Amino acid sequence: MANRVESSTRHYDERLQLILKASAKIFAEKGFHRTSIRDIARATGMSLAGLYYYVRTKEELLFLIQEQCFMTLLQRWEKTADPQEDVRTRIRRFTENHLGFFLHNVYEMKVMSHEDESLTGEFQDKVRLLKRRYVKILMDLIGELRSRNGDKGMNVRVVTFSLFGMMNWIYTWYHPKRDLALAELIDQMLRIYFFGILRGAEAQEPWFTSTTSKAGKETFSLWQNLP
Amino acid sequence: MANRVESSTRHYDERLQLILKASAKIFAEKGFHRTSIRDIARATGMSLAGLYYYVRTKEELLFLIQEQCFMTLLQRWEKTADPQEDVRTRIRRFTENHLGFFLHNVYEMKVMSHEDESLTGEFQDKVRLLKRRYVKILMDLIGELRSRNGDKGMNVRVVTFSLFGMMNWIYTWYHPKRDLALAELIDQMLRIYFFGILRGAEAQEPWFTSTTSKAGKETFSLWQNLP
Repeated sequence: MANRVESSTRHYDERLQLILKASAKIFAEKGFHRTSIRDIARATGMSLAGLYYYVRTKEELLFLIQEQCFMTLLQRWEKTADPQEDVRTRIRRFTENHLGFFLHNVYEMKVMSHEDESLTGEFQDKVRLLKRRYVKILMDLIGELRSRNGDKGMNVRVVTFSLFGMMNWIYTWYHPKRDLALAELIDQMLRIYFFGILRGAEAQEPWFTSTTSKAGKETFSLWQNLP
Repeated sequence: MANRVESSTRHYDERLQLILKASAKIFAEKGFHRTSIRDIARATGMSLAGLYYYVRTKEELLFLIQEQCFMTLLQRWEKTADPQEDVRTRIRRFTENHLGFFLHNVYEMKVMSHEDESLTGEFQDKVRLLKRRYVKILMDLIGELRSRNGDKGMNVRVVTFSLFGMMNWIYTWYHPKRDLALAELIDQMLRIYFFGILRGAEAQEPWFTSTTSKAGKETFSLWQNLP
């Protein structure tokens, strides 16, 4: 009996993951507001009634995608983060986690960057909470760097959101076939961010060059076990 | 007679500008796809028939806003650009022009950054052409900097779009009351971009510090002559 419940839960979860994966792709391509629940039923090969067994509205789908993205980013960060490491190295690891996730989940990246304001009510509140937790990680790292560096008058919000801007804007211009591969993209963005465009290419600091990018070798789709 | 034609043209133009200004605000607040032409009629105090005298669809409104933004940015750049100046100073002026425009036209900034893909067909083609011209200016400046600096392996696209990312992401986080004023925001972003977050605050290069930001003092709304 216990076994049967477990296996039907797994089946439920897998089906839901498939629905979320298909929805993220459609939202990214058509835009959330132009997508109907019928489009999603069609893409998943399900009946409307079948789909309503899993979610009640397309808002709920958008919420579940965004929630799963932030939860994954947060969990992966918690596994990676080592408070013993140099704070600059931790900023590097945060960037690797963020960009590694984004470039392996491009539809979800677009949905997160672009449909940020499409949720309302409780869904919006919940996602905002997760997002605030996530942004605070980088903001705290920047604060720590600033206090170690001696406060030289840089504004923590500008420094924090400049990195998010560089990373999140990628969905508007990046073409995998035309542009740098992930590991090199991460390296160049961090060179610009830490050392600036004037000297970034030459920077050879040990804390920077010794942490070889893991993110470039690893692939991790949000929907790991799905075809 | 000539006078009458001129004055009715001016009246037509002013009315259209008022419609565009109101539309940009609604598109920014509600999102393009959730806005109806009725919403725009209501906001401008016009009848639907009156509105249709100026534009045929809300797509046309979005097109006219985006076209006017890019034309203004391009014209202002052409007035500012001085090929005799140090290329780093010209990158600084480009940033001043871009951010100065954006922070004085926040609704239009959001519409440009966020509703980039909402146009289709000929409208989309025309805006893409303008956008490509505009992006090419910064890309050429970066290319020039790179060849003067000696090619050190930085990717021109990453360097170009990292600056656009930092600037264009502002619409998601910037609060005028909470965040830095324009001149200081420009200064800090450029310090990060040119010198990096590790040494940006201390940079005292003459070409950087001698060009005091004009953009901070000047206000320029896109709709200069409107109430």
